[in-house]
Amino acid sequence: MNVTHGLRRALQVNAGGVAMICGDRQRTWAEVGERVARFAGALRSLGVGAGDRVAVLMLNQDRYLELYLAVAWAGAVIVPVNIRWSPAEIEDSLRDCRPSVLVVDDAFAEPGMVIARRIGTLRPIHADDGATPEGVASYEELLAAAAPVPDAMRGTHDLAGIFYTGGTTGRSKGVMLSHGNLMADEFNVLAEGLFPLDSIYLHAAPMFHLANGAAMYSLMLSGGTNVVIRAFNPEGVMQAIERHRVNEILLVPTMIQMLVDHPAIGAYDLSSLRRIVFGASPMSEALLDRAVAALPRTQFVQAYGMTELSPIATVLHHREQVGEGRKLGRHRSGGRATFGVQVRIVDANDTPVPPGTVGEICVSGDVVMMGYWERPEETARAVIDGWMHTGDGGAMDADGFVYVVDRIKDMIVTGGENVYSAEVENVVAQFPAVAQCAVIGIPSERWGEEVHAVVMPRPGATVDAEALIAFCHQRIAGYKCPRSVDVRETPMPMSGAGKILKRELRLPFWQGKERRVN
Amino acid sequence: MNVTHGLRRALQVNAGGVAMICGDRQRTWAEVGERVARFAGALRSLGVGAGDRVAVLMLNQDRYLELYLAVAWAGAVIVPVNIRWSPAEIEDSLRDCRPSVLVVDDAFAEPGMVIARRIGTLRPIHADDGATPEGVASYEELLAAAAPVPDAMRGTHDLAGIFYTGGTTGRSKGVMLSHGNLMADEFNVLAEGLFPLDSIYLHAAPMFHLANGAAMYSLMLSGGTNVVIRAFNPEGVMQAIERHRVNEILLVPTMIQMLVDHPAIGAYDLSSLRRIVFGASPMSEALLDRAVAALPRTQFVQAYGMTELSPIATVLHHREQVGEGRKLGRHRSGGRATFGVQVRIVDANDTPVPPGTVGEICVSGDVVMMGYWERPEETARAVIDGWMHTGDGGAMDADGFVYVVDRIKDMIVTGGENVYSAEVENVVAQFPAVAQCAVIGIPSERWGEEVHAVVMPRPGATVDAEALIAFCHQRIAGYKCPRSVDVRETPMPMSGAGKILKRELRLPFWQGKERRVN
Repeated sequence: MNVTHGLRRALQVNAGGVAMICGDRQRTWAEVGERVARFAGALRSLGVGAGDRVAVLMLNQDRYLELYLAVAWAGAVIVPVNIRWSPAEIEDSLRDCRPSVLVVDDAFAEPGMVIARRIGTLRPIHADDGATPEGVASYEELLAAAAPVPDAMRGTHDLAGIFYTGGTTGRSKGVMLSHGNLMADEFNVLAEGLFPLDSIYLHAAPMFHLANGAAMYSLMLSGGTNVVIRAFNPEGVMQAIERHRVNEILLVPTMIQMLVDHPAIGAYDLSSLRRIVFGASPMSEALLDRAVAALPRTQFVQAYGMTELSPIATVLHHREQVGEGRKLGRHRSGGRATFGVQVRIVDANDTPVPPGTVGEICVSGDVVMMGYWERPEETARAVIDGWMHTGDGGAMDADGFVYVVDRIKDMIVTGGENVYSAEVENVVAQFPAVAQCAVIGIPSERWGEEVHAVVMPRPGATVDAEALIAFCHQRIAGYKCPRSVDVRETPMPMSGAGKILKRELRLPFWQGKERRVN
Repeated sequence: MNVTHGLRRALQVNAGGVAMICGDRQRTWAEVGERVARFAGALRSLGVGAGDRVAVLMLNQDRYLELYLAVAWAGAVIVPVNIRWSPAEIEDSLRDCRPSVLVVDDAFAEPGMVIARRIGTLRPIHADDGATPEGVASYEELLAAAAPVPDAMRGTHDLAGIFYTGGTTGRSKGVMLSHGNLMADEFNVLAEGLFPLDSIYLHAAPMFHLANGAAMYSLMLSGGTNVVIRAFNPEGVMQAIERHRVNEILLVPTMIQMLVDHPAIGAYDLSSLRRIVFGASPMSEALLDRAVAALPRTQFVQAYGMTELSPIATVLHHREQVGEGRKLGRHRSGGRATFGVQVRIVDANDTPVPPGTVGEICVSGDVVMMGYWERPEETARAVIDGWMHTGDGGAMDADGFVYVVDRIKDMIVTGGENVYSAEVENVVAQFPAVAQCAVIGIPSERWGEEVHAVVMPRPGATVDAEALIAFCHQRIAGYKCPRSVDVRETPMPMSGAGKILKRELRLPFWQGKERRVN
């Protein structure tokens, strides 16, 4: 089984169905199948062989999807590059995994060519609607000139892609996922009822990131329709939903916030949107409430996972976000293990802990990565006896619901007490003037660390720090409340996946000091 | 991944949920988990090791489900025995696969003990509510005395079960299915939306057969509730549905016919039954119409497959049985490949044929069996380059719908024309007085073969052969119409799976003559 299986299936069961819509361009599965087999032929004629890496540095577009398929069809390995990275970071990752080709779009043609020249062995290809820069091969011309080749039919245990992880933890690592890893995730996701055959899915989250990839790969298997916009913006999303009757979307909570707080939300017909899957970072209860109120016909499904898990480990269905599930507090959990996954919580000695006890979340199943690219020691530390150690702190209740309390390194230890930043953020986010917040530990001579909040006000609102701290004291134990508040007008530093980079927020406070975990 | 994965998951997410209901006995997943681990311990203490076979010869009951789980938990291989077989056939199959244990119930204690004595090395265990016969170990006593053991954690490619095929083709073969085969089928089935977490499934089809197994294994993964009745009978099914609010069931068409034609059907509340999955043999349009009329709230989903495919290859959803799909004639198809399966149609040279052309249906994917037990030549003939050659004749349309026309050996060649018995049976079944029918080829000096119908009248009705033949001539081409009709008052000879044994119907006509395929 491999990730092109779904394309072969779509060619059989849905050849005339709409595969992709990007702007005014629309293609059937038959057309996409033809283009994929041709571009795979083009890659072969450029000398790209089995297991060779093909890097992609592009905003969202339909050709990105073709590349995911064509690279696999050619037997090669895709390396989707984080578009938020600096040129130096990009160059680092490409020197790390040594691709032979770098595909760029209009937006990244210039930095891409600079990087390609610096590395020397990296052949650039331009894939977009604008003019192809000189000295660069054109995707469309290569495709038109190439003869279609048969599927390389990679196997379950062959490498399919290298996905560089975030940037929340310093130096990024290449996560190696096999065809079998990605297929296992696809089946887990479809078995949960997500992204079925009749999906009209909007790629609004960045296509380089595996959060969107979870939806994309599942849709590749079910054979639904892919609507693509270049990049997330609230009005672009609303326009695309209305125009194409989009029914499924994956967003990160920051995007949901921008969408539901947008003044024009009432001006669009979003009634087709039956489901929003969200993940990559937790969503505050306050935002969940606003979102459910703004989109009453839409189901909200949370997925928890990480790139190393291809990426989904647990799913929380809408019924648990509202009604009975809500009364039981399950909306605060990341849900339960998908059908092909096992989750357990372990202590510092790697021993499973009883229900309700906080420890490290570990996951096993066919979704666990092959390892980190050329980093055997880091792989051995992360994957022990088949169990991926996520670095997330959490607890499981007696019904198998997993409550993620924090990244273990984001936990705050103050006066000997553990404070989970997510819990405090949930309260801070309820403060009416707060649009976005992050809670971090900063050095304290007396307590070791103390709780500090960074908040961004809602448009036109002002956050009074004293009032915010008092608001917290009415709701949670004193030791959990922020002792200090920074109000910032500039956006938070974000990772490519839309996670707030707490490491960067912590940095100015900890310079020259040593924190228990970095 | 292995077939006990779902039990381990159920113990985590649904330990207090109802796992099994059998008569007045009800057990939670926690209780079942405890019993499974104990009986696995009992098997170990009897010397049953990894890969050893454990045969089961029982009517349906809750302990049958425990055995499927406990044998896998112990690392052993289950051999479910066909309860319709004669003692000689049972002995043959047990001598073939050499199990160390034979588990019997009240109904099969006597023949089971006779067979065990004859074979000598086969240790009988009695698992039922009646008195344990002398000289036989008791399941409940063994279980009570044993200590629970940890899951043997068999791997994807380890043998999970040997399932002897039908009897429609003479000497039966043991189909070896791995844990991965069965898990692949489970994921394919769940991805189609069948047998989800909230299922209350009624085991009415025989539990030894993999048609019921397809539902049972899927339910093992999703963790729903298993309601068990000893054996199919229409009133027993209706009572169980009403009493336990059953929402999912798998039946073979013969059972559906007995259900919907039963005079008491209006007396029961069957409103909970949201879906009937049917398979193992085709259902006539006439019966489908009666069934939809009798159960208007129930969805009818057809599955096509065979034991060698673990067992499902294609699924036809309710929307294709009625409305638009019906107008397109799709209700006559077996549906489309499940997500993890590829189907193709090949000619006699194993070359794929164009859409609409009849050939042999071939299937690839992780569901394809490991092979036939100790029959490497027959395995090599059936599985070529990963493609299972089903022996079924069929065609695929441009949308991937697979139309099964006949077992290749049941096709009738008359005057150089191919006649597919299923097509003729569909017409004969519409004749008002006909309850059940089979169309076979019988020898003809002039035409090679000629079309012959065997029919069973509906209760109280009489079938006029001339009128039936005239009825056919109004509906299908002359060469397809039966030239002769046998009306029989006794039931058709049936296989364990509820398939009419056409070989037996043909036998008296062909004695001493040679047919093109046996």
